[in-house]
Amino acid sequence: MTDLPVTEPLLFNLDEPTPAHPNPAGIRRVAVLTSGGDAPGMNAAVRAVVRTGAQQGVEVVGVRRGFSGLHRGELTLLGPRDVANIIQRGGTILLTARSHSWRSPEGRARGAQVLRDWNVDGLIVIGGDGSFHGAHLLQEEHGIPVIGVPGTIDNDLYGTDHTIGYFTAVETALDAVDKLRDTGASHERIFVIEVMGRHAGHIALDVAVAGGAEEVFIPEDHKPVDSAVQVVQESVRKGKKGSIVIVAEGYAGGAQGVADAITAGTGLETRVSILGHIQRGGSPVSSDRILASRLGEAAVYALMDGQRGVMVGRTAGGITYTPLHETWENRKDVSRDLYRCARTLSV
Amino acid sequence: MTDLPVTEPLLFNLDEPTPAHPNPAGIRRVAVLTSGGDAPGMNAAVRAVVRTGAQQGVEVVGVRRGFSGLHRGELTLLGPRDVANIIQRGGTILLTARSHSWRSPEGRARGAQVLRDWNVDGLIVIGGDGSFHGAHLLQEEHGIPVIGVPGTIDNDLYGTDHTIGYFTAVETALDAVDKLRDTGASHERIFVIEVMGRHAGHIALDVAVAGGAEEVFIPEDHKPVDSAVQVVQESVRKGKKGSIVIVAEGYAGGAQGVADAITAGTGLETRVSILGHIQRGGSPVSSDRILASRLGEAAVYALMDGQRGVMVGRTAGGITYTPLHETWENRKDVSRDLYRCARTLSV
Amino acid sequence: MTDLPVTEPLLFNLDEPTPAHPNPAGIRRVAVLTSGGDAPGMNAAVRAVVRTGAQQGVEVVGVRRGFSGLHRGELTLLGPRDVANIIQRGGTILLTARSHSWRSPEGRARGAQVLRDWNVDGLIVIGGDGSFHGAHLLQEEHGIPVIGVPGTIDNDLYGTDHTIGYFTAVETALDAVDKLRDTGASHERIFVIEVMGRHAGHIALDVAVAGGAEEVFIPEDHKPVDSAVQVVQESVRKGKKGSIVIVAEGYAGGAQGVADAITAGTGLETRVSILGHIQRGGSPVSSDRILASRLGEAAVYALMDGQRGVMVGRTAGGITYTPLHETWENRKDVSRDLYRCARTLSV
Amino acid sequence: MTDLPVTEPLLFNLDEPTPAHPNPAGIRRVAVLTSGGDAPGMNAAVRAVVRTGAQQGVEVVGVRRGFSGLHRGELTLLGPRDVANIIQRGGTILLTARSHSWRSPEGRARGAQVLRDWNVDGLIVIGGDGSFHGAHLLQEEHGIPVIGVPGTIDNDLYGTDHTIGYFTAVETALDAVDKLRDTGASHERIFVIEVMGRHAGHIALDVAVAGGAEEVFIPEDHKPVDSAVQVVQESVRKGKKGSIVIVAEGYAGGAQGVADAITAGTGLETRVSILGHIQRGGSPVSSDRILASRLGEAAVYALMDGQRGVMVGRTAGGITYTPLHETWENRKDVSRDLYRCARTLSV
Repeated sequence: MTDLPVTEPLLFNLDEPTPAHPNPAGIRRVAVLTSGGDAPGMNAAVRAVVRTGAQQGVEVVGVRRGFSGLHRGELTLLGPRDVANIIQRGGTILLTARSHSWRSPEGRARGAQVLRDWNVDGLIVIGGDGSFHGAHLLQEEHGIPVIGVPGTIDNDLYGTDHTIGYFTAVETALDAVDKLRDTGASHERIFVIEVMGRHAGHIALDVAVAGGAEEVFIPEDHKPVDSAVQVVQESVRKGKKGSIVIVAEGYAGGAQGVADAITAGTGLETRVSILGHIQRGGSPVSSDRILASRLGEAAVYALMDGQRGVMVGRTAGGITYTPLHETWENRKDVSRDLYRCARTLSV
Repeated sequence: MTDLPVTEPLLFNLDEPTPAHPNPAGIRRVAVLTSGGDAPGMNAAVRAVVRTGAQQGVEVVGVRRGFSGLHRGELTLLGPRDVANIIQRGGTILLTARSHSWRSPEGRARGAQVLRDWNVDGLIVIGGDGSFHGAHLLQEEHGIPVIGVPGTIDNDLYGTDHTIGYFTAVETALDAVDKLRDTGASHERIFVIEVMGRHAGHIALDVAVAGGAEEVFIPEDHKPVDSAVQVVQESVRKGKKGSIVIVAEGYAGGAQGVADAITAGTGLETRVSILGHIQRGGSPVSSDRILASRLGEAAVYALMDGQRGVMVGRTAGGITYTPLHETWENRKDVSRDLYRCARTLSV
Repeated sequence: MTDLPVTEPLLFNLDEPTPAHPNPAGIRRVAVLTSGGDAPGMNAAVRAVVRTGAQQGVEVVGVRRGFSGLHRGELTLLGPRDVANIIQRGGTILLTARSHSWRSPEGRARGAQVLRDWNVDGLIVIGGDGSFHGAHLLQEEHGIPVIGVPGTIDNDLYGTDHTIGYFTAVETALDAVDKLRDTGASHERIFVIEVMGRHAGHIALDVAVAGGAEEVFIPEDHKPVDSAVQVVQESVRKGKKGSIVIVAEGYAGGAQGVADAITAGTGLETRVSILGHIQRGGSPVSSDRILASRLGEAAVYALMDGQRGVMVGRTAGGITYTPLHETWENRKDVSRDLYRCARTLSV
Repeated sequence: MTDLPVTEPLLFNLDEPTPAHPNPAGIRRVAVLTSGGDAPGMNAAVRAVVRTGAQQGVEVVGVRRGFSGLHRGELTLLGPRDVANIIQRGGTILLTARSHSWRSPEGRARGAQVLRDWNVDGLIVIGGDGSFHGAHLLQEEHGIPVIGVPGTIDNDLYGTDHTIGYFTAVETALDAVDKLRDTGASHERIFVIEVMGRHAGHIALDVAVAGGAEEVFIPEDHKPVDSAVQVVQESVRKGKKGSIVIVAEGYAGGAQGVADAITAGTGLETRVSILGHIQRGGSPVSSDRILASRLGEAAVYALMDGQRGVMVGRTAGGITYTPLHETWENRKDVSRDLYRCARTLSV
């Protein structure tokens, strides 16, 4: 027989200079802030905004401490070197804060005035649905064009397949599960691990599939805690060494509640780990950095294109725009297929 | 103003038992093998095949050492416990080998006979295009239904957004870049890192974007090596501390060639790292494990559905089937958008 | 001036074959077991025992599930290939169990009989003080020569500078602290992290120094919980972004108690992470593997030398032997110097 | 029988304020610089110097870019907040450079003048033997009291058990070996890995033991490269899956030379990885941070005590002082015991 057919390498010249993006909206200066809970990859997004701006002749002003810093005038011009060596850092160099300042009309008026004083033509908000709500009102009431960039570990924003920080949070929780797996396999123990997710089970479900967990409890499900008892009993019957149960923090009772139910129902000892904010930290994994780089770039282009009041997202590999209010009015459900997959593979 | 509108949690009962998948093809026993270069996540795919089989009443036979082991009859029945505690392991418990046995009609006839002796109704091949070619011929010549599962770190298979192992390989290379970044920023040095990719620049490009590299050389591009000189000179002029250049192994001259050109053109010292097979190892990251779990499950269902001669892939979030021959006849190009993004953000 | 003086490389031939170790005790077969809580590096120690035995012509029998497996006769001969590819694995391939079987004279008599039935000349016990106590009684009552190898993450054994598993546990907890540091610095929050250490603060103290924590609470100290309030208030006054407080699980009230006290005393929000058994898992770091390799080797040599009833340890770079009963009768205090260092550097 | 005797917890009050260190030398201001190749943990050492100074009422001046920055007057006062959030960072915030300025009497005179202009009472130099030589001459010729802190990944300084950065470099190389182990075990391949160590085999030897390598080549040994052929042939004969060979960069021929010899002698395919400067980067592991914290603290105390011209080190758990010239005049050999252990355990 013949060798494998070799496809002719389709050489192309990738090395042309980046073209100037059209700027019908006449954007000359934008502001950027990070808001709400921080997420790994926010720095990569800030860097992308600043450098895309620099590359396109658009000035970028960084706002520190989110909306509360905006309110207080904590702004500064950022050049390409100011965002050097941050792509790999967790947290956000712009700092963030859970602010209530945008909740009052006066707070928003003050913020809008600061942006006008700084001659800002548009505001890019990196955060979650609460932050987008504030941004939405700022635009509605004061005509400041705003663009949202989805930055939250919870992955609960409608309009994008994934949010910045999500991949890293899953990886951090998975690393913990792997470590428990080592000791569980040696000691034949039952571990109950609480991961983040107050309203959404995305992290918990991904960790359950990737970690090979025996059971997962998420807020979306109305499965009774007692089902854990049955699962553990079956595991023992099947001869499994140790069991791993993942619980999203938003599931009633949390990890401790599930652990108590297991002990009450089986008489077996359980061990609880509560990861907490560890999942917000750490150097972002590649997927979060690439997503953040693309969305930060897209946010600047969106303003230049004349988009306003939308979140830039990535859906099925392409950039999409979703009106900000739809991001919180709609619900991004966990995948039922993946949930079934989790159950099938824990057989 | 009012609080954020709270969407009513859409409770649903996820906890129904996994339904029996229809089995019009009457599959009772399948074989699974891993072939070609190993990739992190292959074990998760094997586990998914075995456990989906167990859950659906389909027996699974594992073949060791790929096609060469098939040829020699290295087969064994695998139950759910045989694949316990492997989801997090790099490598493949089934072992792999770059075999030439399927290249001769006699070799394929021998392999087919072994499968018939074992009463196997279908074969699942986890590997890359070379392995798929062997599988394709086995089906063409001997009527054994085959299903391909894309397992290769190179991400160069048409018919799936990503291949199993790709995410982990990128992460491993990125970790190396981050470490160089630390020392580069302290020492103001130029680093040239060679990553895998003999024919495809997918890994190199992702690493360049996620690592914030100054320049990237991939096989698809016909950029002259001298362009590295210009990039480094500009970096120095801009006041950058250190420069990072990513080179895919398939780019003419490799990392050493690029480094030599930089030194010749700028007089600056360079440091070369050649990562090599390190990128094939390590515990798979969550994205690879989830992809492998879903595709392993889908491969069993595909055989039960009567699919044959196709690769299961994931495209835009859904399971897709691509005739095996299309996976190597078509070319999966690197993203030009991402390439431009890499350049824009290194400003 | 002249160049730096170059010391003449003192070449020596290291490549001589390993000499046969003298064997005045006439040891022909030893048994090895892991007992108590598992610790990363136990596998490296088992491997070292088996391979040193193989190299010296001493057969090695592995006992599964510690003393309870010994009691039940779960023994098997181990050759060099049986311990291949385990040096990097967490957990223990021999499994472990917290057994009560050695607590009764009958249990110990049964265990001794099993060892005699297997013609075992000595027993190597990898574990902590509870396991050593069992081993000690076995020797006292039944004349079986025993050697202890310190394997516990707690580092609380007298007679060795460090115990196997300790370095990895510290590293795991430190990784969590680093992640919190990222998010703490972005969000200006107070984190309270509970690490392992029921009776000893070694892990907590090392993590506090290496993690740059503001405060640490260990069981050995009788510092009131209120001191955390003062430390946090000072941190705020000094302008620190975020505070990190480490609490050993054995400190009264644990992390939650400390967190509650801080909130009560300062009105500031705190976040709690409880790492739990994660600290027992993971691939052992190099220091644990090297320590385990050396102590496993030393344990076989010790039996051959005629040592009995001692723990092999490493103190100031050399191998030492400590009578087993001294390992639990004496106390290994945390370093007061290091404690002072922790305070000085959190200024 | 009775329960295990519980030792009475020896409670002590650790929480006394740090006492003022005696200051017979009347030190009021010190300078600190990092020099030579950077090493993970240098930042932790800088932080310890600055904060110990702050705590003891001694001002600390940071010098950027080592001796060359000193020469150019790149000095700045550092307070405790200036070194916040750096303990976990690789590299050095003070930057470093391989300077030749101290090689001329004029260069040293200029540096001394800068220190006098800044009213500096002593200089702390964090680096290796080259840097210590410069420091030594500065003291000899100009009477500036100097203290050396051992910061180099090579661990080749006489007068301390370990140098800052060494543990992290070993861990980084070990992680690479572990990844190769995964793929080697799946593919039955021979890997040759080049690690750092131009004149010393400390890293290579530790990595060989911890990585379970089949063979190690270091500069100190005069073993011929052909011995690799024999080792690999024996590995194959013993049925080992894959072989791992560690080569220090200073061994004649490097990794490529060893790989070529193996292929020539056995006909087997080999794969080479050259880690390079990756080993200088990354977040320091706990042992490096703790060592750096203790030595940075000790360096300030040493100046206050009136020590001069010595390196502070840690030997057998205590702080030691070694005259600077002894650190390069004496040789720190690799451990022959450990070398033998490596061979024994690769049986």
